[in-house]
Amino acid sequence: MPALGDATRGRILFGGDYNPEQWPEETWADDVRLMRDAGVNSVTVGVFSWARIEPRPGVREFGWLDRLTELLHSHDIGVVLATPTASPPPWMGARHPDTLPRDEDGRTVWWGSRQHFCPSSPTYRAYATALTEDLAARYGDHPALTLWHVNNEYCTFCWCDATARHFRRWLEARYGTVDALNEAWGTAFWSQRYDTWDEVIPPRRAQYLRNPAHLLDFRRFTSDALLECYVAERDIVARHSPHVPVTTNFMPFWTGQDAWRWAAEEDAVSVDVYPDPKDPLGGQYNAMIGDMTRSQARGPWMVMEQAAGPVNWRGVNHPKPRGLNRLHSLQSVARGADAVCYFQWRQSRQGAEKFHSGMVSHAGEHGRTFGEVKRIGAELAALGPRVAGTRVASDVAVLHDWHAWWAAEQEGRPSREVAYPEVVRAWHRALWEGGLTADFAHPEHDLGGYRVVVVPQLYLLTDAAVDNLVAYAAGGGTLVCGFLTGVADEDDRVRPGGMDERLRALFGIGTLHEWWPLDRDEKVACDGFAGTLWSEELEAPDAEVVAAYRDGELAGLPAVLRRDRAWYLSTLPEPAALRDLLARIADGAGVRPVLDGLPTGVEAVRRGDLLFVLNHGRTPVEVPVPGEYRELLAGTPVTGTLALERYGVAVLREGAA
Amino acid sequence: MPALGDATRGRILFGGDYNPEQWPEETWADDVRLMRDAGVNSVTVGVFSWARIEPRPGVREFGWLDRLTELLHSHDIGVVLATPTASPPPWMGARHPDTLPRDEDGRTVWWGSRQHFCPSSPTYRAYATALTEDLAARYGDHPALTLWHVNNEYCTFCWCDATARHFRRWLEARYGTVDALNEAWGTAFWSQRYDTWDEVIPPRRAQYLRNPAHLLDFRRFTSDALLECYVAERDIVARHSPHVPVTTNFMPFWTGQDAWRWAAEEDAVSVDVYPDPKDPLGGQYNAMIGDMTRSQARGPWMVMEQAAGPVNWRGVNHPKPRGLNRLHSLQSVARGADAVCYFQWRQSRQGAEKFHSGMVSHAGEHGRTFGEVKRIGAELAALGPRVAGTRVASDVAVLHDWHAWWAAEQEGRPSREVAYPEVVRAWHRALWEGGLTADFAHPEHDLGGYRVVVVPQLYLLTDAAVDNLVAYAAGGGTLVCGFLTGVADEDDRVRPGGMDERLRALFGIGTLHEWWPLDRDEKVACDGFAGTLWSEELEAPDAEVVAAYRDGELAGLPAVLRRDRAWYLSTLPEPAALRDLLARIADGAGVRPVLDGLPTGVEAVRRGDLLFVLNHGRTPVEVPVPGEYRELLAGTPVTGTLALERYGVAVLREGAA
Amino acid sequence: MPALGDATRGRILFGGDYNPEQWPEETWADDVRLMRDAGVNSVTVGVFSWARIEPRPGVREFGWLDRLTELLHSHDIGVVLATPTASPPPWMGARHPDTLPRDEDGRTVWWGSRQHFCPSSPTYRAYATALTEDLAARYGDHPALTLWHVNNEYCTFCWCDATARHFRRWLEARYGTVDALNEAWGTAFWSQRYDTWDEVIPPRRAQYLRNPAHLLDFRRFTSDALLECYVAERDIVARHSPHVPVTTNFMPFWTGQDAWRWAAEEDAVSVDVYPDPKDPLGGQYNAMIGDMTRSQARGPWMVMEQAAGPVNWRGVNHPKPRGLNRLHSLQSVARGADAVCYFQWRQSRQGAEKFHSGMVSHAGEHGRTFGEVKRIGAELAALGPRVAGTRVASDVAVLHDWHAWWAAEQEGRPSREVAYPEVVRAWHRALWEGGLTADFAHPEHDLGGYRVVVVPQLYLLTDAAVDNLVAYAAGGGTLVCGFLTGVADEDDRVRPGGMDERLRALFGIGTLHEWWPLDRDEKVACDGFAGTLWSEELEAPDAEVVAAYRDGELAGLPAVLRRDRAWYLSTLPEPAALRDLLARIADGAGVRPVLDGLPTGVEAVRRGDLLFVLNHGRTPVEVPVPGEYRELLAGTPVTGTLALERYGVAVLREGAA
Repeated sequence: MPALGDATRGRILFGGDYNPEQWPEETWADDVRLMRDAGVNSVTVGVFSWARIEPRPGVREFGWLDRLTELLHSHDIGVVLATPTASPPPWMGARHPDTLPRDEDGRTVWWGSRQHFCPSSPTYRAYATALTEDLAARYGDHPALTLWHVNNEYCTFCWCDATARHFRRWLEARYGTVDALNEAWGTAFWSQRYDTWDEVIPPRRAQYLRNPAHLLDFRRFTSDALLECYVAERDIVARHSPHVPVTTNFMPFWTGQDAWRWAAEEDAVSVDVYPDPKDPLGGQYNAMIGDMTRSQARGPWMVMEQAAGPVNWRGVNHPKPRGLNRLHSLQSVARGADAVCYFQWRQSRQGAEKFHSGMVSHAGEHGRTFGEVKRIGAELAALGPRVAGTRVASDVAVLHDWHAWWAAEQEGRPSREVAYPEVVRAWHRALWEGGLTADFAHPEHDLGGYRVVVVPQLYLLTDAAVDNLVAYAAGGGTLVCGFLTGVADEDDRVRPGGMDERLRALFGIGTLHEWWPLDRDEKVACDGFAGTLWSEELEAPDAEVVAAYRDGELAGLPAVLRRDRAWYLSTLPEPAALRDLLARIADGAGVRPVLDGLPTGVEAVRRGDLLFVLNHGRTPVEVPVPGEYRELLAGTPVTGTLALERYGVAVLREGAA
Repeated sequence: MPALGDATRGRILFGGDYNPEQWPEETWADDVRLMRDAGVNSVTVGVFSWARIEPRPGVREFGWLDRLTELLHSHDIGVVLATPTASPPPWMGARHPDTLPRDEDGRTVWWGSRQHFCPSSPTYRAYATALTEDLAARYGDHPALTLWHVNNEYCTFCWCDATARHFRRWLEARYGTVDALNEAWGTAFWSQRYDTWDEVIPPRRAQYLRNPAHLLDFRRFTSDALLECYVAERDIVARHSPHVPVTTNFMPFWTGQDAWRWAAEEDAVSVDVYPDPKDPLGGQYNAMIGDMTRSQARGPWMVMEQAAGPVNWRGVNHPKPRGLNRLHSLQSVARGADAVCYFQWRQSRQGAEKFHSGMVSHAGEHGRTFGEVKRIGAELAALGPRVAGTRVASDVAVLHDWHAWWAAEQEGRPSREVAYPEVVRAWHRALWEGGLTADFAHPEHDLGGYRVVVVPQLYLLTDAAVDNLVAYAAGGGTLVCGFLTGVADEDDRVRPGGMDERLRALFGIGTLHEWWPLDRDEKVACDGFAGTLWSEELEAPDAEVVAAYRDGELAGLPAVLRRDRAWYLSTLPEPAALRDLLARIADGAGVRPVLDGLPTGVEAVRRGDLLFVLNHGRTPVEVPVPGEYRELLAGTPVTGTLALERYGVAVLREGAA
Repeated sequence: MPALGDATRGRILFGGDYNPEQWPEETWADDVRLMRDAGVNSVTVGVFSWARIEPRPGVREFGWLDRLTELLHSHDIGVVLATPTASPPPWMGARHPDTLPRDEDGRTVWWGSRQHFCPSSPTYRAYATALTEDLAARYGDHPALTLWHVNNEYCTFCWCDATARHFRRWLEARYGTVDALNEAWGTAFWSQRYDTWDEVIPPRRAQYLRNPAHLLDFRRFTSDALLECYVAERDIVARHSPHVPVTTNFMPFWTGQDAWRWAAEEDAVSVDVYPDPKDPLGGQYNAMIGDMTRSQARGPWMVMEQAAGPVNWRGVNHPKPRGLNRLHSLQSVARGADAVCYFQWRQSRQGAEKFHSGMVSHAGEHGRTFGEVKRIGAELAALGPRVAGTRVASDVAVLHDWHAWWAAEQEGRPSREVAYPEVVRAWHRALWEGGLTADFAHPEHDLGGYRVVVVPQLYLLTDAAVDNLVAYAAGGGTLVCGFLTGVADEDDRVRPGGMDERLRALFGIGTLHEWWPLDRDEKVACDGFAGTLWSEELEAPDAEVVAAYRDGELAGLPAVLRRDRAWYLSTLPEPAALRDLLARIADGAGVRPVLDGLPTGVEAVRRGDLLFVLNHGRTPVEVPVPGEYRELLAGTPVTGTLALERYGVAVLREGAA
């Protein structure tokens, strides 16, 4: 099987989406000149070229793409070739309205933007695979081809009648009989029993709360339906190019795809990541997406898209201050990326994203943005041979599962203030601020390699996952669980007692009387810290109460408890408290920060034999680094103390040489 | 005619919705064991059993229900049997799309939740009455049957074409001719004249403001269309069970039903009431719903649903602190309830309401929630013989009318900050905090029995209602009116001068120049208090100005005025000021609080020969109670002072014995 | 060509919309009595009379309108006759559903309000023109007729299939070929290339951001489609009444119509203006709308609608304090209005606007509102001969263009906090507070007559417009530009460098590196003031830096710069700073305020040979007025100092006589 290394070959890929069809062909020469100037060694082409290649049904116009690939090849720029199936041409919707999605209100989603295809539409699939076939036949063995990029940011939901038929087939495969579906969905409630498969529809607009298991399965189905689209195209390109790895680019931490399942179908895992330049924790966000993608890839991964400057889809789109692009790019490399790419090469003058920055912005080659791009390109070229293919070691795992997220965010739940991604982010932040490098893992993964496993919140846990956690703890691992974990089984059926009894036994919890969710901005006083979001009325006769609630209805009841190496938090401590608690627990498990005494905002992470130190702050800092190092970017020796400018990065190799 | 007393027979009904079809039949024995343990004497079954009873069109599966009713009967647990017509099975929508509602945007409301039926659909009605017929034939004379519960929380609006036809028939019955409709709706405005009945449609999505009389009549029609559904089923069950009372459960103070009109069609009046446990005025809310339902029932009434713990439909769903369930349950009894029931008996493990609490919560029989349920059951069993069937006396009436509400909440009105239910609640709160027990009444009711009548806001008053108010005052009654009263006639036609001239004469008001609505959170200074929501520029040459506006454009004009016993408030005083003003007016009319000197948050109310004292505060209090009493719950004597713990309740009988 | 002067004939028109069909015919005599009492000399009839005139297809009922026009004529009240085509009768939608608009989600917009017609519907157009033909034939030479008022507040958008066909024809006329359309819209982006005209649709609901040029052209098309409706009716009435001017009433500063283009098709320009009585800058708003309408009219203009008291479409609808109606009415006259009219004469008792005030409010003829109306009528009658037809002189122009607005408010843009109308209003406010009278102008207008031209924000500028600005500056004019000007060309294609290079050369700007939009309520410190909304990272080697950013990423870079007489502001200074800056720039160009030393909130403006001084404050002021004047309203002499009560107005004629 091909892998990312077949594309990188000892280099870090540097480049971006290249859409030359938006420009007169005369511009291309200037493009490759600037690419060379910036150290670009890889560009992605064809992502949105469907209408250019197939201007009307069945026609093929490949001449421009032939010329383009030759030009790039002649300049030693590798080609990541995309199947252009994310945005069908207008003729498809106009001739085949069945390819257009319907939303849950029955409204047609028209062409005029992108991704206006129903993933269950046989018509769409037929056109998409036919085009992919011809594309792969023509370019599958082109020497410039380094990677296949299937579609783009799969994200289309649909509630149409074709989807209904597809959903029924998926359910029939999952449950076998309507009775089994009724049992799994609990349709005895509110008289929702299905008598025949034909009565099952996607969860459309309804009078009141909809069935949560129905909603959950529709999430699962949609992820799988999109995955079928991917697999169909992947199989075609893989047949033509057996040695070229295949990827599709994920949106970061996005709700619609079970990326664990998807990643297993990819040769290389790639992600698009857009931290808000004004978010003071943008660096933590970038780290989290890197950790998650690396864990899905089980090794090096790709930043397929990031922005050299502002994006255009936020309410207020901030540019990147000087140095931030470089900081985040090198941070991704530190966390395992072997590709640092952008959307897009040259900022568009027209179209919906003309205010989304490019490596070459509207300001052109003399703009500050392109200047920083050139610097990054040069540094990555120098670092490449030392880091490409190396791994990031971690003693800590953060468990995450899309199914738990989907089940937890149903309509009628204890608190709409609890947002799964924010809870995960709060826990990752605590580890990041504590200098603890973490992988992500699925709750059914083998956790034996980790000293500490943290579970921010896994509302839904399969029996296998529960057993896995219990076995992990029994095997000497340290397990730290947040609230709303183990509440429901695989069908979103609440487990007796409101929490799995094996987990309650693990933590020493007896009766869980009631959940006490907190209001927005409400805090609950606990021993030594304030809790947020949630609290619980529970008895834990067999646990040690590490911190109790201090007043209100819950005074004296456990906020943080442990039984041996199994810890349970019935609230979300404020950031510093969670950081300190996790640091203390990790320390007890023999896990130390990468570097001790890091100033606030400074991150340290080891990749291979290199130590990356990154200053996310806007002021210069001095970082204590015991021992002797060589800093590779500047080529200077470092002894005892490292000076970092604002947004500064050091890549240290041990030893004075 | 049967009545609630036929079901209660000297007891307070205690129990809840029981949905055993959600559980394996083995669980039933455990259920009845726990019911007996908790003093449950009544359960409601069948509310959402349509798909279980009629799994496909025309089939009937009654076996499980036969076994269930026998089991309950054998344990002396009465059965409130519901017609399961609130939630049609999926086969109905799938086979008969004409049964599905359309919203005002034309969107289909699909199955997958509940209440997905168009009340005007002949198909739905045919299926619902056929099933009701068979159900009533089978169980109509079952000895366990105590009450019929028709449907559940009727609340479905529909704008479909069948509704349009039904609406036209309703309008034709109301107006006779299209000309009369044009006159009533004022269709000369904006060229809206209807030439034929066929042109009339429900008020669907439009370009701008819609005709307010059209909107008002559509509200009236929808209440009546739903009522037709109720009456059709009621007539069937009454035919089979002439001695069993019939009810349908109201949502509390809900906008969609003219409950005065509905209650007249019920043998017993029941309501579902869900005060927010975190609302510091939750007790006042519970009191208000109780007062309103008692007034509709003109005697004892039923809490058909309340929650033993949290609900699941708020943004953040708080559980009930220890004691609050008991406090609210006994408060309802104090205010006339002869039934204290819950949704639902056993908390569901699946479905859309699995996070809505049950009497037996996820924590099970050892949870705190069930413990409190058992205490309540025991206390109600003891109290039952002393209170069931007795009445709550009141010298004060609060006037309320759905038609006035509907007309006032039209689209283009003076202020969207004025919300009718909040205004009513503000006035009820003032009475409640002043220790004055109040009934609710319709503006055309005979008011002769009340010493004080308050009108928080009745924007629309029929001529008969105006005459009724004027006659009441002429007969020696004390009348207190808030602003926006008497503005419009029955067709929502503004009365000359902006307020009915008979009312202006009653209050001594001359010209009402302009309304001056206040912005959100704005206050206007008046003599001795601050006004909120509203103010008015008016001349009142024949009135006494009790309090004037103090600054701004209205300085010196009347904020509170009176002419003899007729009072008018052109603003909404802040809570304490309104409380004091109403206390003063009541005192002038010879109406005193139930108890003098009540501490804040303590409620006293008399029912029959008992005095209930309830502490809604979270700290213990001492309450002065002149005289000698026996406290019935604890069986202790009380002399002069009553000690109440937080959320504590005392039921006092005069005399030391 | 007829003009407004043919209707005013030396008078100021005073009156309002008169809808007597809402009242019994007996009321009419009372109406004309009160009109005479109030000095009303003009009323608008028929605006919403379609259903009255054509109660069913093809029928004509003109008798009532015959009697009405005779009655008005016999009392010397002029008739502004409206074509009643803004609100089709219910029969039209019921018989011809193709006349109903569809919104961008495909939802039908039903009858039941007003303006429920698709402007592209041939059926609607056929009915509308047939009725207009008959109306014009019957009343075209009636001696009471002074003005034709076509339709009312054209504002209907539609996305239906008939609109799609019409849109394609419009596009074909604009672009000629599909290739040209593809080029103009940049459809190479996201695979949006159209292969045939048939594939083009209105911009309906889509998955993500839509094509901005598509959205822009749909705005242009809709304005033009509505204009076609207007022109078709105008041509009919003009044929029947060649000497009667024609107008249609604009909504103020409304997004949907390119009023520059529309005004060119009108004989008289009229507007509806509704400042919020509670807005402390309501007077500035009224001034801005007046300046804009006067500029469209290139001379005297009409207030077709304003409110004598509250409106009913805001969240909270405040009445007008005593004096405010008079203040705003006289302010409009001061700024060039020759007609001061209201919606509506008599406040409705029924219908959607029954809480919108009238000249005769619900309080009737003894209400304060009518009292003020009478005063205004008398004063305007006295002023008329002196002001009607005279002009307002201005040395300053504010450039404004709908196309720039439409293009700037696309979906995916740098900042959603930047709202074009608010930016324009901020600049106009600065001029208004600085006592500088301004016209509005289109960027391609001849600007030679102005000493100062300000450009608050013109994101889109055609090449001709850029050349016009450059030529204006080259010719000695002073040009002041705000940020986001000159970014895009006519097709919304971003110009190289992010700003037109001719403009950059004009201002001395080199590289524009990045835009730095500010968050809501964020401020950026600059030399001497704080900037809001926006900032920029730019180099201006050839400019003088007038004020620099003081801290943050942009410290030291230019916030305000100039090159000779060309000024550029890369941020929006806070109000006082912008006022002072513009005053200083104007002073440098030889432009002085109308009066020096005006107290805050006092406005001075010259019309013809009269000086209007208006106090927008709520407290009396003394205004220094060097010289001797006669105040015409009170008939008193003024020497040196003018005393104005709150909301007071003085109309000064130079000289003591």
